[in-house]
Amino acid sequence: MPDKRHPKKQGFGKYTLINELKDKYKKLFDDSGSGNEVSSILYLEGIHFNLMYFPLQHLGYKSVINAIADLYCRSIIPVNISVNLGLSARFRKEDIGSIIQGISLACDKYSIKISALDISSSLTGLAISIASYGKGKGQFKKEKPEETDLICVTGDLGSAYLGLQLLERERKVFEDTGGAQPKLEGFEYVIGRQLKPELKTELLDKLREENVTTGVMRVVRDGLASELIHISRETGLGCRVYNERLPVDPETEAAGRELGFEPVIAVLNGGDDFEFIFTAPVNEHAKINKTKGLHIIGHLVKQEEGYNLVLPDGSLAELSAQGWNG
Amino acid sequence: MPDKRHPKKQGFGKYTLINELKDKYKKLFDDSGSGNEVSSILYLEGIHFNLMYFPLQHLGYKSVINAIADLYCRSIIPVNISVNLGLSARFRKEDIGSIIQGISLACDKYSIKISALDISSSLTGLAISIASYGKGKGQFKKEKPEETDLICVTGDLGSAYLGLQLLERERKVFEDTGGAQPKLEGFEYVIGRQLKPELKTELLDKLREENVTTGVMRVVRDGLASELIHISRETGLGCRVYNERLPVDPETEAAGRELGFEPVIAVLNGGDDFEFIFTAPVNEHAKINKTKGLHIIGHLVKQEEGYNLVLPDGSLAELSAQGWNG
Repeated sequence: MPDKRHPKKQGFGKYTLINELKDKYKKLFDDSGSGNEVSSILYLEGIHFNLMYFPLQHLGYKSVINAIADLYCRSIIPVNISVNLGLSARFRKEDIGSIIQGISLACDKYSIKISALDISSSLTGLAISIASYGKGKGQFKKEKPEETDLICVTGDLGSAYLGLQLLERERKVFEDTGGAQPKLEGFEYVIGRQLKPELKTELLDKLREENVTTGVMRVVRDGLASELIHISRETGLGCRVYNERLPVDPETEAAGRELGFEPVIAVLNGGDDFEFIFTAPVNEHAKINKTKGLHIIGHLVKQEEGYNLVLPDGSLAELSAQGWNG
Repeated sequence: MPDKRHPKKQGFGKYTLINELKDKYKKLFDDSGSGNEVSSILYLEGIHFNLMYFPLQHLGYKSVINAIADLYCRSIIPVNISVNLGLSARFRKEDIGSIIQGISLACDKYSIKISALDISSSLTGLAISIASYGKGKGQFKKEKPEETDLICVTGDLGSAYLGLQLLERERKVFEDTGGAQPKLEGFEYVIGRQLKPELKTELLDKLREENVTTGVMRVVRDGLASELIHISRETGLGCRVYNERLPVDPETEAAGRELGFEPVIAVLNGGDDFEFIFTAPVNEHAKINKTKGLHIIGHLVKQEEGYNLVLPDGSLAELSAQGWNG
């Protein structure tokens, strides 16, 4: 079975550390909502992407998706991005052109423009940092989350991570054989989810049109388990999600069989899903249920119940997430 | 004589490339002023700093200064920063604490708060990316720049670059001797300018109070020559600056003598001055001249006159700047 650890989650327990720093420097951190209009990402070669199988154009595209995703959760519609690239000597002008081409495609799709671009050298590898900036759109009707609130996601989970595992396997075969062609037929969906993710902003628009009340909203970036822990911290409540309700694409199942990898592990501890996850009062059940593309996967519970996955036999498995512990 | 090239300016002609990309992707770039509220930087180990002589706390401080500087030029007062760190396995939790401590000091000084912090691994070295976000303050009275407009700066130039050269020399001595103590006495000012720069925001406030009209305003980051070329592009006019009017600190002169380095080279092609440079109509001469700390170093000229430094004998030396050519 492949290593379950995603490279970017190795090392220190980043969330635990960030929470420690927030405790230590209380005055330094702003929780007033000022700064909501901005979101930023740092994408590093060898950690967040491997150029062996990640085309530069797709990388530019995905970086933008990653940079703007959080804004939508705050009812901010992205308007501009500010882009900083760091490139080592092995990159050529044309490579920068490919990255910008990918950024340009994402900007077209999401109606954004670049307000600033800077390029510098890097000692090793490629670094992409993007700050996104937007303007408020009609806020979601929000209510303080309560026990029994529904937990919903905007699409299937785990697919991007299994796409990554397939690409990783083919990279190894390529290296071991000195150049065998990758076998990726039949896995276009999961690989597309890894290389060219999209945001289901149309589902958020629908929620707004239908006047659905929501509580917390986040982007699933580091696996579902990690997001549920975040939601628990943010709401002061526990979470319960149901194994049989987790949306998993048939191709993800097939990729899991091919790789000997349990899809549920990819759902819980994978990454790069870029689906929105949100809570909503239980009386919004009908509206959410009838909206194609939305999945109700569980509900909030009392804090003391913790965060758990309910298995098919009704037993509970406690969730843990990398990034939280060393 | 030491290598005049600052590492971050080696490689491709970044400004030429950025201008090419802006030409190619006209629709992608936003020049409407939307996005003015945001500025972002990417600081990479070995390119923008060397941890051999750069304490992590100072690095955190300087990163914030670098991230917020441009906002002031746009009459935006920074309110929040969003911080992304990438650290390789050689860094410890305490190192992250030191960086945040430095960031915290700068935030205190400039009345900013962190709206978001993320930490990830890096394959090699340290990467710091900071996006800053602010709100508009009373705009400067602005007028379209004209020939004869004054060119002014808010402080002495070249000192940070000579500070860097001293630190570099001592690093080499340290390595060659296996640990000789650095000799930096008498150079506290130039070294401070490198390790802990500040922004002369009080001079900008003064300009505003005095109701001074300005044209273009920028931050001197990659040497004066580079900024003058930017100003020429932005205004469609030429620039002329006078050698004897360039503000150079006595300690910068002394460091230059010690290192066998012409201070004027550091002024023109050095870096990290973090002084503001701006143009103003010639009839603002009296107000600017009486403001302590402001230096009138030259004036705009017709475009066809290009950008030149006037030498003491009255002859002209054409300016060129790294970053513009391959």
